[in-house]
Amino acid sequence: MVAPDAERSAVGHAITTLMPLRVKEFRRGNQLLGYAVDGTPADCVKIAIGSIFKEDKVDLVVSGINLGSNTATNVIYSGTVSAATEARILGVPSIAISLGTFLNPRWRYAAGLGRRIAAAVLERGLPPKVLLNVNVPNLPRSQIKGIKVTRQGDSAYLDDFAIREDPRHQPYYWLAGTYLMEDDDPDTDGWALRNGYVSISPVSFDLTAYGALNEIAGWGWKP
Amino acid sequence: MVAPDAERSAVGHAITTLMPLRVKEFRRGNQLLGYAVDGTPADCVKIAIGSIFKEDKVDLVVSGINLGSNTATNVIYSGTVSAATEARILGVPSIAISLGTFLNPRWRYAAGLGRRIAAAVLERGLPPKVLLNVNVPNLPRSQIKGIKVTRQGDSAYLDDFAIREDPRHQPYYWLAGTYLMEDDDPDTDGWALRNGYVSISPVSFDLTAYGALNEIAGWGWKP
Repeated sequence: MVAPDAERSAVGHAITTLMPLRVKEFRRGNQLLGYAVDGTPADCVKIAIGSIFKEDKVDLVVSGINLGSNTATNVIYSGTVSAATEARILGVPSIAISLGTFLNPRWRYAAGLGRRIAAAVLERGLPPKVLLNVNVPNLPRSQIKGIKVTRQGDSAYLDDFAIREDPRHQPYYWLAGTYLMEDDDPDTDGWALRNGYVSISPVSFDLTAYGALNEIAGWGWKP
Repeated sequence: MVAPDAERSAVGHAITTLMPLRVKEFRRGNQLLGYAVDGTPADCVKIAIGSIFKEDKVDLVVSGINLGSNTATNVIYSGTVSAATEARILGVPSIAISLGTFLNPRWRYAAGLGRRIAAAVLERGLPPKVLLNVNVPNLPRSQIKGIKVTRQGDSAYLDDFAIREDPRHQPYYWLAGTYLMEDDDPDTDGWALRNGYVSISPVSFDLTAYGALNEIAGWGWKP
């Protein structure tokens, strides 16, 4: 296990290039449980594959289980998904797995499912540049309605900033987004999760909007 | 203009939620030139649209001109592209523009082209969820071979970490990637830039690997 040494929420696909990183062994008694890195989730994957486990062949990277879902537009900001993306960029198959709650997490079902998905990925392989973004409802096994393979849905926030004064009377801004809508298409990740299904979305790091290539090319560009 | 108060390289789509942000007016004499934010490029867009220019209608966000290209897999790590992506998420058409050099930048042609692309986007509009990622060769106008509408190419690095000791004999790690390959398909962003063309790539923030949906759905998932 290689993990950030503190919470890194909404870090997106940040990597640390301008500063050095520290790696500390994390032990319980004499037992080495993992490594703590003072960087982002994507840094952890880079340093795990490129340095800590350099002499090993890494077959699979599992990122998570994250406390809190990573669906819809929020996938863009997700450190959990970006760690899995980083592994895939480095040629290693990967899974991101998140639990759809911030309170009273039920890890057991998600952990067992994660093991089964890992086994399936090792057995079947993943298409090039594709990773799996898994979101698990925070429900007991008996209440899970099924597993849906989904697309990334839409969501929208109205950004707002609380503006306050610090003790030296200087203003500071704090992001406070207001929820506007979420996708209600049953083919989407967020719908599946809200309705008691495990969501598995194949995610790619090719950002090209292929459907827009011809339209943009037809604008008659001149240097 | 709303910009980070210092270089923020490789920050990806990070946004700042766990800490407050500071916004400082940036003046030359009495003239207000813009606002400096102690956050990421995506933070700047959020705070510009959500707070600083809240009473205005923002028609277009132009992110850049960045010193250094943003092509191929590096688009994932790009603060420049993520700022444009954030604008598009908030419903505002956007362009990211980067200059293909770190040394002796020739801003003039890129700036003029940026104005023309901005005018074209305002006139024609962009498809939903699509923004333009523009890369301009660092050449005089007379040596620009043309403008190509491209897809995001591949690139690969072999990650390596320099491990050193600090003055207190503690180890630290510093990322040092070694360049392995770059895409030589003439339809790609990197090829265009390396060969004297302006590259315009339509980019989306829908990360779904649509081509993989059926394959993954066929794996026979059971809860």
